[in-house]
Formats: sequence, C-alpha cells, structure tokens
Amino acid sequence: MPRKPGKSAVADRDAATDRKIVALAEGVVRKALAKKEPVIDVPTRTRGNTIWDRKHRILRMGDAKAQRELFNLNQAKQFMQTMLHSHSVRELIAAQKTLSLRGMFYKGLHTVAGTSEKTFADQDESDGILEDLEVCLGALREELHVFAKKAGTIVGNVTLVDSGDEIDCRRMGSGGYAIPSIVEPDVIQFKKCEARFVLHVEKNTVWSRFNEDRFWAKHNCILTEGGGQPPRGVRRLLKRLNTELGLPIYCLLDCDPWGHYIYSVIKQGSISLAFESERLAIPDAKFVGIRAKDYRACDLTDDVKIDLNDTDIKRAREIAAYPWFERHKGWQNEIQGLLDNGFKMEVESLITKDISYVTETYVPERLKALDWLD
Amino acid sequence: MPRKPGKSAVADRDAATDRKIVALAEGVVRKALAKKEPVIDVPTRTRGNTIWDRKHRILRMGDAKAQRELFNLNQAKQFMQTMLHSHSVRELIAAQKTLSLRGMFYKGLHTVAGTSEKTFADQDESDGILEDLEVCLGALREELHVFAKKAGTIVGNVTLVDSGDEIDCRRMGSGGYAIPSIVEPDVIQFKKCEARFVLHVEKNTVWSRFNEDRFWAKHNCILTEGGGQPPRGVRRLLKRLNTELGLPIYCLLDCDPWGHYIYSVIKQGSISLAFESERLAIPDAKFVGIRAKDYRACDLTDDVKIDLNDTDIKRAREIAAYPWFERHKGWQNEIQGLLDNGFKMEVESLITKDISYVTETYVPERLKALDWLD
Repeated sequence: MPRKPGKSAVADRDAATDRKIVALAEGVVRKALAKKEPVIDVPTRTRGNTIWDRKHRILRMGDAKAQRELFNLNQAKQFMQTMLHSHSVRELIAAQKTLSLRGMFYKGLHTVAGTSEKTFADQDESDGILEDLEVCLGALREELHVFAKKAGTIVGNVTLVDSGDEIDCRRMGSGGYAIPSIVEPDVIQFKKCEARFVLHVEKNTVWSRFNEDRFWAKHNCILTEGGGQPPRGVRRLLKRLNTELGLPIYCLLDCDPWGHYIYSVIKQGSISLAFESERLAIPDAKFVGIRAKDYRACDLTDDVKIDLNDTDIKRAREIAAYPWFERHKGWQNEIQGLLDNGFKMEVESLITKDISYVTETYVPERLKALDWLD
Repeated sequence: MPRKPGKSAVADRDAATDRKIVALAEGVVRKALAKKEPVIDVPTRTRGNTIWDRKHRILRMGDAKAQRELFNLNQAKQFMQTMLHSHSVRELIAAQKTLSLRGMFYKGLHTVAGTSEKTFADQDESDGILEDLEVCLGALREELHVFAKKAGTIVGNVTLVDSGDEIDCRRMGSGGYAIPSIVEPDVIQFKKCEARFVLHVEKNTVWSRFNEDRFWAKHNCILTEGGGQPPRGVRRLLKRLNTELGLPIYCLLDCDPWGHYIYSVIKQGSISLAFESERLAIPDAKFVGIRAKDYRACDLTDDVKIDLNDTDIKRAREIAAYPWFERHKGWQNEIQGLLDNGFKMEVESLITKDISYVTETYVPERLKALDWLD
C-alpha cells in the first residue's frame, strides 16, 4: 500500500474522492444554513433493488434511494456516522494512508461529549456505514483508502509491479505472492505477461498441488486461489487480468452448492456488492469442474461421495433459480445432475485416482476439449 | 514445494524417512512370520504425557507409549490405517511430491475389498493417524511430504531462496510473500539478512498497517503475521530465523487470553504438537504488547474496552496456571492486570490515538525501553 509519490493518476483519483466528500458535506451545510433539514440520499443495497442486467450479464444496483434525515430519531445516528466516516476518509487521503475495516471502526470510535453514547456500537455498524458511503459517493472502498483482510495467492507467467516493487510471479517458489486487498491500477500494474489464461482454484491446498507440479509453467498460465470465497482483492485482480490482459478465467471448484455459488459471484457479482459488479464481475468466467458427470466420466469410486444434506438441496435449488442460471441449459443440467447424484464431490477427490491426476489429466483434457460451463 | 533435484540433503532426509518406514513394516512382517501378533508402539500424545522441560523451557512429550495391536478389535483399524498411510508416504517420497492433509485422506480412501467398510470414516481419523505416524517414526509431517493449509505473510530485510527462486522480501510490495506450509531447509534457505529482529503480529490487517508505514525498512527488521494462531509453517520459519540467524522474535498480540495463548504456543509449544517443540518453540520470544497497563500508559478512552466474559476469565486463569507462567512474576502480574481491568484490548484500539501510533510510537518506544515480557 505504500503508494509511489508524484503519480498523477493516484492524485487525480484521491482528489476526485475528496471532492465528492466535500460536496456531500456542502450539501448538508447548505440545507442547514437555509434552515432546512439536512438529508443525504443513500442508494438502497437490498435484494429488491438489485437488477439482473441481461445485456451485460452482471448484477447491478437499481435506482431506489432512501433518505437519511438528521432530524429523524431513527436515522440521526446513521446520519452522523456517515459524516464521521467521511471525515476519517478525508484524513486518510490527506495522510496518504489506508486503514482496515476494523481500523476504521476504531478510528471513528468515541463517546459523544456529554453523553454515554458511543459513536459505533460495533464493527458491523461501522462496516455498513462504509458500504453506504461507497454507494453514496460512487467511490469504491479502495478509493476510500479502506482495505479488508487479505487472502489468496498467485504464481505464474506474469510480472506485476506492486507499490514500485517488481513481483516476478514466475519466481515465487512454493509460497507465492500474497494478493493484497487493494489491487487498483495505482497500486498494482501489469508489466509483462506471456500467460494465455488464468486457472483459479478454490483452496490453497489445491493451489499448492498445481504449483508443485508447475502447471502454470507447462501450460503457460497464471495460477490463483482465493481461500474459499475469494475476497474483493482477488476478484478485482482476476477481473483486471480478464479485461486488461484479455485472459480467460477458468475456475476449478468443488461440485457442490458452495462451489457453484463461488463461481456465480466471480461471474455475475453478489447482491451485497451489486454496486461494484462492473469492477468485479467476470461474465465470461468459465467453470471447468468438478462436474456432476465426473463420478462416471472419471470412473470414481463410491468412497468420494459426500451426501447432500437438506441445506445443500435447498441451496442448489436457489442457485438454479438465479436469473443467469435459470435459462442456461448447461447449468440447469449441472445442478440437476448434482441433485440426481445426491452427493457432492471435492476437487481433492481426484487424488483417489492419482496424486497428480487433476494437474496432469483432468484440467488439461477439459481445456483441450473446450469442456466447461460458462 | 518443487524440490531442487540432486540436493543430497533432501535425498538423505528422504532416504532416512524411507528407512524408518521400511523398518516399521519389517517389524510387522518379522512378528507375523514368527507367528506372533504384529504390534506397533505409538508414543502417547496426551496432556498426561506432556512434560514441561524447565531447563530448556519447552513442552516435551514424555516416554509413555501405547501398543497398537493388529489382533485387537479396537485397534485393528488404526493399525491398518497406520500401514496404509506409511505406504502413501513412501509413494510420495518416491514421486518427490507432497500432499495436503485432505489429500492424504483421499489418497488412503477406499472400501476394503469384500466389505462395505471404508478405510477412513473422515479426515479427522486420517489426520490423527498422520500425527501418530510422525511420533512413531520420529519424522515430522514435513518429512512425510505432507503439508497443511498455509497462512501468513512476510516482508523485510531478508532474502530467502524458496525451491530455487530468490525471494527478496524487501521488494514484495503491499502483498508480501506468502509463507508456505513446508519451510524446512531443503525448501527454504536464508540468503542475505541485515534485519536485527523479527516483529510478529497477530492479524494480517495489522501487518498491512506496519508494511504500509515501512516499519521494517525504518527499523531494519522482518515483519510477519500468522493469520491469528500461526500455523506450523509460520512457527517453524520464526524458529529458524531465531536459531539460525540469531534474530530476537517480538510478538505484538491482543491483550486478551487468545493473544496470551498465541504467545504461549509460539514460546513453549502446544500439547498436541509437544513432540516437535524442539523444532517449533522459541523460548526467548518476547511479548511487546498490548499490555494491561496500556489503558493508562497510552491514555486510552473507555471506548476501546471489550468486556471480559466468563469464558475469558476461565481461560485467563488456566493460562496463568501454565507451568512457564505460574512462577513468572511478570506474567502473573500481566494476567492479573487483565482480570483487574475486566476488559480486553485489541492492537487496533491504538488507532483511536492515531492511524500510525502503533508503528511510529508504541512499538518503537517499547523496543527502545526494552519494555516487554519474556
């Protein structure tokens, strides 16, 4: 996160965010001076205000807004919390520093003078206000200088520049380069890339198998993992690899509703982050497996079966009804296949065939046969 | 984890592990041919067989052993599971590959011919057998070619070599180098180190704050985090930095029983891994904070207080009774201070003073004043 000084792109972005905050504050002051009630408009981040944009194949936030009024007992606290966090963000921009979500909670935390009322009851309250602020200002969390816990690693045929340091992902040993929470172009630049695609896997233990077998060197690609459901930093990096370098993104996930959900979020975005789908969602992302058909196709034994429970079945049906899946014959068949099987399968189950079956046979064959869901 | 071929140290280590497995198997065969019952001795990994070695200041496993008999209905399954995993390990050594704990479960998983009995009911069973095998053979998990989920990152004034790749931890940007699960000398070598000490922090968000402020450059040190309770890979790397490079290890953890427990494990080892304390425990590790006195010393407000609950109080008392803490005046005072306060404090609470108070004031002052617990 140390930013290179003098970079005009960063300065421009920060200046724009700063102006948005000043405009928000000036709106409040103007109303107050005119003896009117200060009000801010907050776009509604609910399922009801989430729209499936069929043309662009991403989830978007609709136009619904709620007014947050200062002189409303139910809203005054949130109103003031929004102002408080706006102030903190301006300080971060001025200091050219970033803070974690937990750090923002503490930064804004104090007892209101003359009362025993804390500004925030807990971090959840603080996190919610930050998301409100993102949509109010039309500025991403990264632009507010706020970061989250990082997770995920990358290796492969690409050189990145991170805060001025050249990161040669071909020379990252067994550990890999840890993907930071903020990967915007002012922090991370792409320098040199020969890779033809990205293979994204769910778990870091599977990633280690692929790295040890040097899959990325043999198949000229980039290998990433996101520690389960990938955090924003990982999704954003995948998105940039996809759009800026034109690399297809292939996902290798478990054959279960959780794997399908991870794929869905990578591909179309999520309801809670619908306001930044354009920056995160990768409509062209492909699902190479594990597929429901693999029990037969790979000649697996009964030992790898993990029974679906009631929650799994319910989740599978919900996912099948997602607007981007409900008219997709391939995905309808896939989810029906999972339900018909009655069991889940993990990527690691392929180890019952051979330690390196997944890296040497499964993925190469599927890619060669263009056998995936998208 | 791709190992450099032709390295005699690796070959020697693998050959030694292989010999141990062969010896184990030969013992079984010898008994069988002599028409005696095959039996293996498994050292007992329980609290009762854990000894506090006051001289070396680490937890050790005692001499108690349990016999695992093939012709005992209660033990036959575990006996055979041990043989099965031994066989898998030999295959891994021969193939020069490693597998995750989950992978080992799948590798050994099959239905016993002519029955409907699976070799392992679940991964827990498999993990337990692997720990048994470690202590039976006197070979660490890493020597059995088995790895776990990785967590933790490192930056700072050190150059590592990982599987032949040079990792300059001074040039790792905002993300850092992800610490792998296996960091034994055949995988990771230390090449160049100017650092005078290691600062280990609990959470990766705090680590990001220190990295952004380039604490490691200003104070000529190495900065690590372990994602909460550090996994074996991180502890082993810290241990190697401590013993091989002679660097003191300073820990910055929360002022709560969980923070104290993390410190305790880094310092003396844990009961479940007592058999490898010599390779993991760092008796000289120092606790720089957060301290119970900091509420006053740093002039913090009531806002940062997080009430101790009953579980916290119980845990604090348990930790105070650990043999390495119970005669340690400093730690008795520290834990009593926490109980007297009646509240916990997180490292992030220092953000209420200033974004960079922890990096610019707190840690530098404590280190300068030699103000820590050890």
